[in-house]
Amino acid sequence: MSNLLSRRTFMQASGVAIGSGAIPLLPFTQSVASAQERASAPVDVTRRLARYLVNSNWTDIPQDVRTEAVRSVFNWVGCCLGGARHITTDRALAALAEFSGTPEGTVLGRRERLDILHAALLNGISSHVLDYDDTHLETIIHPAGPVASAILALGEKRNISGEEFMHAFVLGVETECRIGKAVYPSHYDRGFHITGTTGVFGAAAASGKLLGLSEQQMVWALGIAATQSAGLKEMFGTMCKPFHPGSAAQNGLKAALLAAKDFTSSDQGIEAPEGFAFTYSDVQDFSQVTDNLGSTFEVSRNTYKPFACGIVTHPIIDGCIQLRNENNLVPAQIARVALRVNPLVLSLTGKTTPQTGLESKFSIYHASAAAIIRGTAGPSEFTDATVQNGEVIALRGKVTAQIDENVSEEEAFVSITLNDGSVLDKHVEHAIGSMERPMTREALEQKFSGQAASALPVDQIERVMALCWDIESITDINELIRATVPV
Amino acid sequence: MSNLLSRRTFMQASGVAIGSGAIPLLPFTQSVASAQERASAPVDVTRRLARYLVNSNWTDIPQDVRTEAVRSVFNWVGCCLGGARHITTDRALAALAEFSGTPEGTVLGRRERLDILHAALLNGISSHVLDYDDTHLETIIHPAGPVASAILALGEKRNISGEEFMHAFVLGVETECRIGKAVYPSHYDRGFHITGTTGVFGAAAASGKLLGLSEQQMVWALGIAATQSAGLKEMFGTMCKPFHPGSAAQNGLKAALLAAKDFTSSDQGIEAPEGFAFTYSDVQDFSQVTDNLGSTFEVSRNTYKPFACGIVTHPIIDGCIQLRNENNLVPAQIARVALRVNPLVLSLTGKTTPQTGLESKFSIYHASAAAIIRGTAGPSEFTDATVQNGEVIALRGKVTAQIDENVSEEEAFVSITLNDGSVLDKHVEHAIGSMERPMTREALEQKFSGQAASALPVDQIERVMALCWDIESITDINELIRATVPV
Repeated sequence: MSNLLSRRTFMQASGVAIGSGAIPLLPFTQSVASAQERASAPVDVTRRLARYLVNSNWTDIPQDVRTEAVRSVFNWVGCCLGGARHITTDRALAALAEFSGTPEGTVLGRRERLDILHAALLNGISSHVLDYDDTHLETIIHPAGPVASAILALGEKRNISGEEFMHAFVLGVETECRIGKAVYPSHYDRGFHITGTTGVFGAAAASGKLLGLSEQQMVWALGIAATQSAGLKEMFGTMCKPFHPGSAAQNGLKAALLAAKDFTSSDQGIEAPEGFAFTYSDVQDFSQVTDNLGSTFEVSRNTYKPFACGIVTHPIIDGCIQLRNENNLVPAQIARVALRVNPLVLSLTGKTTPQTGLESKFSIYHASAAAIIRGTAGPSEFTDATVQNGEVIALRGKVTAQIDENVSEEEAFVSITLNDGSVLDKHVEHAIGSMERPMTREALEQKFSGQAASALPVDQIERVMALCWDIESITDINELIRATVPV
Repeated sequence: MSNLLSRRTFMQASGVAIGSGAIPLLPFTQSVASAQERASAPVDVTRRLARYLVNSNWTDIPQDVRTEAVRSVFNWVGCCLGGARHITTDRALAALAEFSGTPEGTVLGRRERLDILHAALLNGISSHVLDYDDTHLETIIHPAGPVASAILALGEKRNISGEEFMHAFVLGVETECRIGKAVYPSHYDRGFHITGTTGVFGAAAASGKLLGLSEQQMVWALGIAATQSAGLKEMFGTMCKPFHPGSAAQNGLKAALLAAKDFTSSDQGIEAPEGFAFTYSDVQDFSQVTDNLGSTFEVSRNTYKPFACGIVTHPIIDGCIQLRNENNLVPAQIARVALRVNPLVLSLTGKTTPQTGLESKFSIYHASAAAIIRGTAGPSEFTDATVQNGEVIALRGKVTAQIDENVSEEEAFVSITLNDGSVLDKHVEHAIGSMERPMTREALEQKFSGQAASALPVDQIERVMALCWDIESITDINELIRATVPV
C-alpha cells in the first residue's frame, strides 16, 4: 500500500461501497479554484500530451515497462473471462445487443459479437464487475479496463498486431494515470469515480494512436473525451460501477473515431479555465501530465488483486493461506484463529455473520475461514453458496479479531491455535499483490485460470494464457480474441 | 430576459464562446459542500421524482402547458432541419454511421437512418448546431434537444402516438429543468454545460416513460443518467457544443433501456452525498426537484430564439427590423444608424469589421446592417457570404453604437437618420422571443421555413409544419418523421 494513500482513499480503494453515508465522509476543506488560478494555468497541456502520444514509437518503450504492461493485459483478459457470464454483463447485453451494428467486436469469453463500440462497453463491464482487476495505487484508477476494452475492439476490426496493441495500451494507461495524478485526490473526494472519469482519456488516447491521428486530431480526441468524462462513486455496489470503465472505453473510442473525421473540440480540454481539471476538481497539478513524458511509465506501477475483495483484507488472507500451505492445515485440526489488525479492518469488514456473497466481502471472519479451507480467496470464496457452507460457518465461528493501532494498514498478524495446543504465527508486512510483493507469474496464472473456468474449458484456458504472455509476437490480435470464444 | 439571470450567465446564454479566458471569468467564491451538508440532504429526491414520472397521466397536463410544449417541439423540428446538412452533422455521420445497428431511427431532414441510439445523437447535434434552438432562461438549458431527440428515435421504433410523445416530452423537460434549477448557477459556474449535464436526465426520464418503467426502474434510469452526466463549457465554439445535447439524448435513452432490463444503479443518484448534485455542484437546492411536482411545468417557461445569434443582440435586431418594416426602408435611404445599448452589448459584440460568418455573430454592427437590409436575422444573415456582401458592408459602416448604463440588458434604442434628414426612432423594451414578447405562431413558422429550406422543398415544409402543430392527434409518430425525409 503506497504511503501516498490516505486512510480514506485506502478505504475506497478497498472496493467498499461508500455512498449514502454508510461510512462517515471526511470533511471537504478544499475551495474551488479562483478565476485567477484558472486563468494562470499552462495553456499547452493537452497539446504536449497529444504530441507525445502521436510521436511515441514502440522502440521507445523500455523492456521492463513492456513486461509490466503484458502482465496488466494478461490480468485484464482473465478478469474479462471471469465476468463474462455475470448477471451484470447479461443484463447489459439484454438491453443493448439489439441496437448493435455490424458484429466486428468480440465479447471475450462469450459467443456474442457486437459492433466495436458496444464490444468496448461490454468488455469494460465484464472486466470490472468482480472488483478483481488491477489498481494504480497512487490514483486508485483501475487502468486496464477502459484502455484495453477500447483497443481490443478497434484492433479486432483493424487486424492490428500484438505490438501495436501493447504500444497503444501503454500510452492509454499513461494518459489516464497522468491526468488522474493531476487531479487526485481532490477530484476523487468530490465524488467522481476516477476510473470512469479519466479512463475515457486513456481509451481515446490509445484508440487515437491505433487510428494514426495527427497531433491536432489527438488534441481533439482528448477534448472530446474530456467533455464525456463521467462516473459517480455513489454507484459503488451497483451495476453502474463496472459500467464506468465500460462507458469510458466506449466513449473514448468514440472520441477517437470522431476526431479522425475532424470533429473538432477545444484545443485545451484538460487545462482550460473551464476544461476538465478545473471543472471536475478543486486542485490541479498540471506538471503531472507533462513532466517526464516518455521517461517514466505509469503502467510500471500497476498492481493486481490476488483476492476478490477489498484490499484492506488482503494481509490477513495472505497470512491465513501461508499458514495453511506451510502446515498442510485442515479445518478439523484448528481450535481457534486469532487476528490482530489495523482498526480500519474491523470498521470496514467486521461483519461476523454474513448472509450473502456480497456481504461476505465485508467479513474478515468469513474471508479468513474460507481462505484457510480453500487455500485461495477468489470469486468462488465470496458466493452465497460458500457463505452458507457448513464447514466455512464452523471455522468462521472460531475466528476472533483484535484491533491494534500499532499495526499498519499494510500489515497483519495471524495466530492459529491447533487442537493439540500448538500455535502457528504469521506476520505479513505487505500482502501479496502490493508493490512490495507483486503477484508472481504463477499467481497471476492461478488467478486467471480460476476466473476463466466459468467461461472456458481447461485446455482453452491454457491456450489463451499462452497467447497473452506471448502477445507481443502475435501478428493479428484476432488470434488471441478467437481463442477466448467458447467452442 | 429574466431578472434571475446574472450578468455573467446572460453573457453565456448569448451563445458567446467563453473558454480560454476570452472573456474574464468572475470570481469563484463558493466553497465545496461540507460532509455535514452532504449527509443532511433529503434521501428521497430521486424516488419522489421517479414516482411522479411513472404516475403522471397525459390528462394531468394542463392545456396551456400542452400548447407551449407543442411550440417547443415545433421549434425543435425546425432546428433539426436547419442543422441537418451542417458540416458538424456530416462529420458525426462520417465517423459513426458505419457502427450503426438496425436502421430504425431517422435523422430528420436526411435520408440516412441509424439505430435509435445513434439517431438520438445525430438529431441532438443537428438541433443545436446553429445555436438557434430554445432556452429555459432560468437555467440556460436548451431543453428540447436532449429530450425530443431521444424519444423521437424510441418513438419511431415503437410507433407511439403524438400524445405519448408529447407527454414524455413534457416530463423530460420537467426533469432536466428541475434538476438544473437545483444546481444552477453554481454547477454552471464550475464549467459544466448544463444542457448536456442535465439533459441526460431529461432524456432518461422521457424515454423511461415511453418504455413504461416501474418506479424502481425509473429510479435506476435516473441513476444511470446521473453517472453519465457530462459536458464542458470550454467546448463552446467547437463541434462538441452540439455534441452535448446529442450525447445527452443518446445516453439518457441508453439509461432507460438498461433500467428496463433491471440494470441497477444507486437509488439516490441525484441527492446522495456522492451523487450528482454534490459532486457536480457546490450549491444544492433539492426543493427545486420535488416541490410542486405536477402543479408547475417548466416547459411553460421555454423561449425560442428569433435570431441566429446571441440573445444580447436581440433587442437591437428587433428594433432595426421593426423600423425597416414600418417605413419600408431600403439601404439607399439611410444616412446613419445610431444604437444605444447596455455596455454588455459592445463588450460581447463590438466587433466592427467581422471577416467570417462566425465572427459576424459577435458584431452588433453587422447584425444591424444585415437585419435592416434583409428584414430578418436567421442563419443566412451570419454566413461568410453575407459578411462579404458589399451592400451589407456599406451599411455596416454607417452604424455607430453608444453604451449607456441606464439601458438594461433587455432593452435597446435604435435611431435611423435618413438622407432627407428625417429621424426614425425605436425603443425596444423586451425583444421578440423573450418571455414578455413570445414568438408568435407566424414568427415560429417563418423561422421554421427559413431553416427547413436547406433540407426540404417548400411544399414538404408546409406539410411538416402542419403535422407538428397537429402532433397531439397523430396516431403514429412515424407519420411526422416520414414527412421530414427528403423525397
